[in-house]
Amino acid sequence: MPEQLTLSIDAMGGDNAPDMVIEGIQVALTMKPDLQFLLFGDEAKLAPCLERYPQAAKACVVHHTADVITNEAKVAHALRSGRNSSMRLAIDAVGKDEAHGIVSAGNTGALMAMAKFVLKTIPGINRPAISGYFPTLRGRSIMLDLGANVECDAKNLVQFAVMGEVFARIALNVKNPSVGILNVGVEDLKGHQSVKDAANILQTTDLPIKFHGFVEGDDIAKGTVDVIVTDGFTGNIALKTAEGTAKMFGSFLKTTLTSSPLAMLGALFAKSALNKFKERVDPRSYNGAMMLGLNGVCVKSHGGTDAIGFANAINVTVSLINNSINEAIKEDYARVSFDQAETDQQVDPK
Amino acid sequence: MPEQLTLSIDAMGGDNAPDMVIEGIQVALTMKPDLQFLLFGDEAKLAPCLERYPQAAKACVVHHTADVITNEAKVAHALRSGRNSSMRLAIDAVGKDEAHGIVSAGNTGALMAMAKFVLKTIPGINRPAISGYFPTLRGRSIMLDLGANVECDAKNLVQFAVMGEVFARIALNVKNPSVGILNVGVEDLKGHQSVKDAANILQTTDLPIKFHGFVEGDDIAKGTVDVIVTDGFTGNIALKTAEGTAKMFGSFLKTTLTSSPLAMLGALFAKSALNKFKERVDPRSYNGAMMLGLNGVCVKSHGGTDAIGFANAINVTVSLINNSINEAIKEDYARVSFDQAETDQQVDPK
Repeated sequence: MPEQLTLSIDAMGGDNAPDMVIEGIQVALTMKPDLQFLLFGDEAKLAPCLERYPQAAKACVVHHTADVITNEAKVAHALRSGRNSSMRLAIDAVGKDEAHGIVSAGNTGALMAMAKFVLKTIPGINRPAISGYFPTLRGRSIMLDLGANVECDAKNLVQFAVMGEVFARIALNVKNPSVGILNVGVEDLKGHQSVKDAANILQTTDLPIKFHGFVEGDDIAKGTVDVIVTDGFTGNIALKTAEGTAKMFGSFLKTTLTSSPLAMLGALFAKSALNKFKERVDPRSYNGAMMLGLNGVCVKSHGGTDAIGFANAINVTVSLINNSINEAIKEDYARVSFDQAETDQQVDPK
Repeated sequence: MPEQLTLSIDAMGGDNAPDMVIEGIQVALTMKPDLQFLLFGDEAKLAPCLERYPQAAKACVVHHTADVITNEAKVAHALRSGRNSSMRLAIDAVGKDEAHGIVSAGNTGALMAMAKFVLKTIPGINRPAISGYFPTLRGRSIMLDLGANVECDAKNLVQFAVMGEVFARIALNVKNPSVGILNVGVEDLKGHQSVKDAANILQTTDLPIKFHGFVEGDDIAKGTVDVIVTDGFTGNIALKTAEGTAKMFGSFLKTTLTSSPLAMLGALFAKSALNKFKERVDPRSYNGAMMLGLNGVCVKSHGGTDAIGFANAINVTVSLINNSINEAIKEDYARVSFDQAETDQQVDPK
């Protein structure tokens, strides 16, 4: 555990950046007052925000750059022309060991591509994956990949399982997390060849992983397993489908509780209970997705979050650094039976 | 529109069959008293139910069979050994023109496989798809495929778009339904080759379809489009993820509103409004998924539904028959530009 943690921050990423970012730093400092920040962004825009949040200002060293990666920027363009962007310079600081980790609420695709280019993947890991939280009936689970890799073969999925298990141990604080592969049925015969092969490897290899087998879409919210492994196409759609359904429910509920004077009175009586309900499903408390599999801790905050959500992403980052997540992944991954993984690659050479 | 509608019913399919099925028929008859039913199942088990629901008994002709396809049955086994099962005989009745359509709450995979074997696909349609409802902020949308085809190429997706558009016109009663393809982003560059090729065909062909382009997971609940087209793997996971999230929300809300005397009092005041909320998200009102693309109307009811849900599945079936869904699909599909579809197949020959 490093004595003095320094985080590198893309101050220009996110819908309400840089104000939201700097207020988020101030919120994070109330919990962890010793944190230091390298702040990358447009000095002219940062200065008034830093004046508004003096505690944050004290903990930040500003590195000026006028370049920004927009949400609309294509990944190839960001890689080619974004060398002086706030996002890229923030990643570079981790690559140069000037910061212990980086947080950005900017363009996800660009962040993943630039982080991969600068930090490189952990030896043996073919593709990094985006790993994030889901609320469940039991508490919370994590899922990966949430969108970095549209196509995944069995070997990728096995690597996601190893990385996700380590992430869950740290981020969920679960001793022996259970891991499941997302599928359209729980029987061995169902699904794509890649999920069948990955399940086979996880069942037969001597990895220290509590492998549950296949899980279905409704197992996500049930909390059947701690870690849900899937390809980035399916994971992204599951994440956004769940987010959309949750928002729809929230909207229906709001309409319901304001639909009549009696309903409004009822909502008033139930206010304290309803506030707890809101907290339980507050997306801000699930903020902070890690780009797993890189030589460095790179955390993506939701672009639309506020200061509290951004502070949560900072907290996740600190916890991952303090628990040496990448060392733990390397240790576990060394135990994967490569013979089986190679065999698999011949079976499913996508 | 046939003068006298006869539906063929798999009386043994579903968690609470045959009681739920026969009560469901009775409920359906209160709305459509002229319906006739061919009831396939175990006479000894059906007799006491028919006694309990005398209105249903009057509208049913019982065809005895002791064979049942269980939920656990493998598709291949069902096809091979299920020739005298209640499900198969109910499908056969449609194949022999003895019934206008069939409803079953049994094993989905077996129902699809047997229906495809008996009824065959509509000329030109390579694969049938399961099409069902999602509640949305705007009302309801339909999605296909919900699980019949784990792998889909661009041509399959285009066929789903054509069939889904016709389904939405009838089942949602929308004049000119909009159609979107589910993807991990709305930009043309994102996603699998199959979704990109399918979008290209739908954009360039002269089909009478209001093609919206790509939609993401959160667009489902937003109701961005009336018809969401996707492969059966992704669709099944999206459906079950949404169902699981909805159940979790319902469970959280229940806990919330019983968590304190004050909350319970509040819930009492808001009772009438909360009941409307419950109705709005009641899965029973979204029951009834059609196996689209077959020469016949074959509707799958949720296995865990009750009589009201089963009655809704019957209503959907009646509406599809009365509006000659398959004739409309054939008519529209004749306008698909096959040249483009063929080109696509060479690009993506999965």
